[in-house]
Amino acid sequence: MALSETIRALSTMQVVTTIESMRRLRSQAGGSVGFVPTMGYLHEGHLSLVRRARAGNDIVVASIFVNPAQFGPTEDFEKYPRDPQRDLAVLQQEKTDIVFMPSAVEMYPEGFDTYVDVGGVTDVLEGAHRPGHFRGVTTVVQKLFNIVQPTRAYFGQKDAQQLVVIRKMVSDLRLNVEVVGCPTVRETGGLAMSSRNVYLSPDERRAALILFRALSLSERLWRNGERDGTKLRDRLQGLIGREPLAKIDYVSVSDPVTLQELETIEAPALISLAIRIGGTRLIDNLIVGEKRPSPLLAELVAAAK
Amino acid sequence: MALSETIRALSTMQVVTTIESMRRLRSQAGGSVGFVPTMGYLHEGHLSLVRRARAGNDIVVASIFVNPAQFGPTEDFEKYPRDPQRDLAVLQQEKTDIVFMPSAVEMYPEGFDTYVDVGGVTDVLEGAHRPGHFRGVTTVVQKLFNIVQPTRAYFGQKDAQQLVVIRKMVSDLRLNVEVVGCPTVRETGGLAMSSRNVYLSPDERRAALILFRALSLSERLWRNGERDGTKLRDRLQGLIGREPLAKIDYVSVSDPVTLQELETIEAPALISLAIRIGGTRLIDNLIVGEKRPSPLLAELVAAAK
Repeated sequence: MALSETIRALSTMQVVTTIESMRRLRSQAGGSVGFVPTMGYLHEGHLSLVRRARAGNDIVVASIFVNPAQFGPTEDFEKYPRDPQRDLAVLQQEKTDIVFMPSAVEMYPEGFDTYVDVGGVTDVLEGAHRPGHFRGVTTVVQKLFNIVQPTRAYFGQKDAQQLVVIRKMVSDLRLNVEVVGCPTVRETGGLAMSSRNVYLSPDERRAALILFRALSLSERLWRNGERDGTKLRDRLQGLIGREPLAKIDYVSVSDPVTLQELETIEAPALISLAIRIGGTRLIDNLIVGEKRPSPLLAELVAAAK
Repeated sequence: MALSETIRALSTMQVVTTIESMRRLRSQAGGSVGFVPTMGYLHEGHLSLVRRARAGNDIVVASIFVNPAQFGPTEDFEKYPRDPQRDLAVLQQEKTDIVFMPSAVEMYPEGFDTYVDVGGVTDVLEGAHRPGHFRGVTTVVQKLFNIVQPTRAYFGQKDAQQLVVIRKMVSDLRLNVEVVGCPTVRETGGLAMSSRNVYLSPDERRAALILFRALSLSERLWRNGERDGTKLRDRLQGLIGREPLAKIDYVSVSDPVTLQELETIEAPALISLAIRIGGTRLIDNLIVGEKRPSPLLAELVAAAK
């Protein structure tokens, strides 16, 4: 079935590809609007955001846009997985009202030359390893916010730094939207859901479990009283180093708001990892020392021991 | 009379200094909102914007904020003229509904680190002579837009490049506001109204007439068939060079949208000047070859011959 037929078949969900039609639909929508921006190839992590938006708002808008501006020249923009027909089907199942799926030229017409830059928290971690990445993220997210005008926007904790950066942009520029962070959804064994998991061979998928094993180790070390950031990083690097298919981009123990590396872990700390498994770069994170850790996460951590 | 007393005396106009009170007032305002962002020390140019906003909208909001982010380290931020009491009085006369006058720390709290950057059109003219200036302008204008949420925002043609840059930001990021450009207001003799004119001594004020004389010359040369950008610039530089108190920052003949210098003037062209008169830097501009030039301007040009 061609994409156009799929779109026509989805009678109760509106699918729009132009900014003008999205704005027209938005101007007709009364009540609160929950927005889930995605790059498509949807998994349970995305769907958990859609369900959260559905539960908390009158109208649910999702966007599907593989944003070229947030990929580096040597990154996987071209081969990033895409399956718009399946995406539309699952969004309809989740009772999404509107799907906005613009083309690259619709979002970045010729001569486009305006960018939103968040400083400080973008200099480290993903920002240090992926120059220009967050500029691409903040620019497209702000533009999507301006087009969709959501009451609330939903982002996964899996991209922890992205969430920090977007919250900073919204706060600094006083954008009119409430940013809602949602827990990472994991497979059995703890592998965080990611569209990029499709790149993994069976052996690599097994090796990728090292990320959650390392996070679980950090949780146990924290609970056993480890407060030395350097020692914690060393232990995690040691564990990951024993997985032959894994190459470390970074192992970080940072303040969850400023993202500055911690020498002494006093408050809740963000443990975040970027690990290459073969040709696939995976990220994951965990906050230790939170007042109310997720019960599901505690269960997974216990299982990963 | 102290500023606080002045504010209390203005019973029909609301004056607010915090973002939260501005947003609360905005959320109560029905209908269209016309917004005039200013740096205060209001002159007839500003008031023409307020009148235009008053005529076209249900609610008129003006802001007074001397934006530190758009001044360079060697520029006149500290000595920029301020007179909030008089500003409030004239805004009330013009039936402004709400005046937003935040402090610098309210707009840029500690840790503020998000900026909006427009490329290309900011590299030339004012952008080339005032590094970082437009980043300060676009950032504060977008933040003010987010806070005030205007239907329409009014800017003077006097700051021609600023208008181009703001239109580009609004178009690229799809901000939800209509940008309205308004004609430059001039004194007898043609000097463009500017808060900085207060810096001029009587001799300098006479010398400052050279800006409008040069613009008028360009208008006459254009009408007599001059289409060579270089020749036009040379003639203007020659004229300005004969004024002993004037020092040229730039004399430009550019495309009014891209701001690229023109060798051959085919379409309407933006003639723009930045001239130092003593310690005061003045800018002015004129568009030649427009389909419908302002009758008032034609009169002034004729008088300046």
